[in-house]
Amino acid sequence: MSSLDNLGTLTGVGVGPGDPDLLTLRALKALNTADLVVAPVPSPGKSSRALAIAEAGLRKRIHALSLVLPMTPDQGLLKQAHQQAARCLLEHLEMGKNLAYVTLGDPSLYSTFGYLVEEIRSLEPLVPVEVVPGVPAFLAAAAIVPWPLARGRERLLISPCPQKEEALSVLLDTCDSLALLKVGDRGPRVKEFLRARYPGAQLFQGAYLGLEGQDNGPQGHDAYLSTILIKHDKGGARS
Amino acid sequence: MSSLDNLGTLTGVGVGPGDPDLLTLRALKALNTADLVVAPVPSPGKSSRALAIAEAGLRKRIHALSLVLPMTPDQGLLKQAHQQAARCLLEHLEMGKNLAYVTLGDPSLYSTFGYLVEEIRSLEPLVPVEVVPGVPAFLAAAAIVPWPLARGRERLLISPCPQKEEALSVLLDTCDSLALLKVGDRGPRVKEFLRARYPGAQLFQGAYLGLEGQDNGPQGHDAYLSTILIKHDKGGARS
Repeated sequence: MSSLDNLGTLTGVGVGPGDPDLLTLRALKALNTADLVVAPVPSPGKSSRALAIAEAGLRKRIHALSLVLPMTPDQGLLKQAHQQAARCLLEHLEMGKNLAYVTLGDPSLYSTFGYLVEEIRSLEPLVPVEVVPGVPAFLAAAAIVPWPLARGRERLLISPCPQKEEALSVLLDTCDSLALLKVGDRGPRVKEFLRARYPGAQLFQGAYLGLEGQDNGPQGHDAYLSTILIKHDKGGARS
Repeated sequence: MSSLDNLGTLTGVGVGPGDPDLLTLRALKALNTADLVVAPVPSPGKSSRALAIAEAGLRKRIHALSLVLPMTPDQGLLKQAHQQAARCLLEHLEMGKNLAYVTLGDPSLYSTFGYLVEEIRSLEPLVPVEVVPGVPAFLAAAAIVPWPLARGRERLLISPCPQKEEALSVLLDTCDSLALLKVGDRGPRVKEFLRARYPGAQLFQGAYLGLEGQDNGPQGHDAYLSTILIKHDKGGARS
């Protein structure tokens, strides 16, 4: 179908957690040199948070291609959306266009970018893919406290917030610090559980770090994108 | 002793894993506006890797204060070095100087910055501390592969490389992806163990990412600062 010589490169660009000044020089360069910037949106007509960060960092409007990737637990619907998006991106790549796909935080952590790459490569295995790493939200949250999330021999676990609070005990047993992502409306129940079972643990919750509507501190905002950091001293000295 | 009005701010500045273009705009600004840049060195007369990245990013030489922080497992010696460094930094802070302390990767992850803050605050609890988060080495490694380190409900564990390979099984049981840091000379034994016990797992090792002497790929360089990424599919669908 396509000439390999003529395939554009698909680059996942991490724009960081929200503050435009947490963009890296490499991300700015990738956005500036791309033939087309691509931005995920949750539904048609909605704006892209990652694109807004990129525009603030570049201090200019970006004419971007919006890809509708719904936030739904329905795996069938998600797969369908990823496949449709992949076909759309492949059309541009086969015209030799270099695409920069913006993602919040880092493209390797809980980003739609990984799914898109999988779908595109199932259609055309030789599409060149690059990734520009970014500052993830949990590190921006730790910087706000500020906390040393891990020192010496300590372990840090990154996990989506479990559905049931009891599962937190298993997670905490395996690490010294825990970064819970995608907390959503479970924030109050999680914090209540931790205060009851782990009274010595330190808690911090931040949401939409650096974006409009940012809300930090122990009470924090309970939004989908909020992060809870938990530190509990297990000693840190281990083999 | 000191007037609070006159206390400078101590800022930990993450300069990323090695490539100067992974510096953030905020890091560049913090380095440009500091009264004094402080850089850790492993022994007197040695150069600082974090400072070299900062200089490459700013495209100029930085007149920096070198702090000797030896790399030693001797906790007594380390504590002594941190205390001495803290006293030295506090002198500058009490003169109202704003200090930017450069760290590889991110200041909240396995950096000496946390220890220094603890020692300085034990001497003067009111020293203002700020942190500029940075791109950690394990995300730069994932970007090189490139791999989606975690998707959906998957869990990612960040841990220093254990002394005994058997401990890896416990770690892998708790997560879908594992980033092993500070691998040092244990790299070959770790890889041998994983290939024998987890033949389906994917491995990637990178060292000194983006710095001179960078060495990536499955064979990789077995240096102190090297990172091993391990992915093993546990399904990812969990509560």
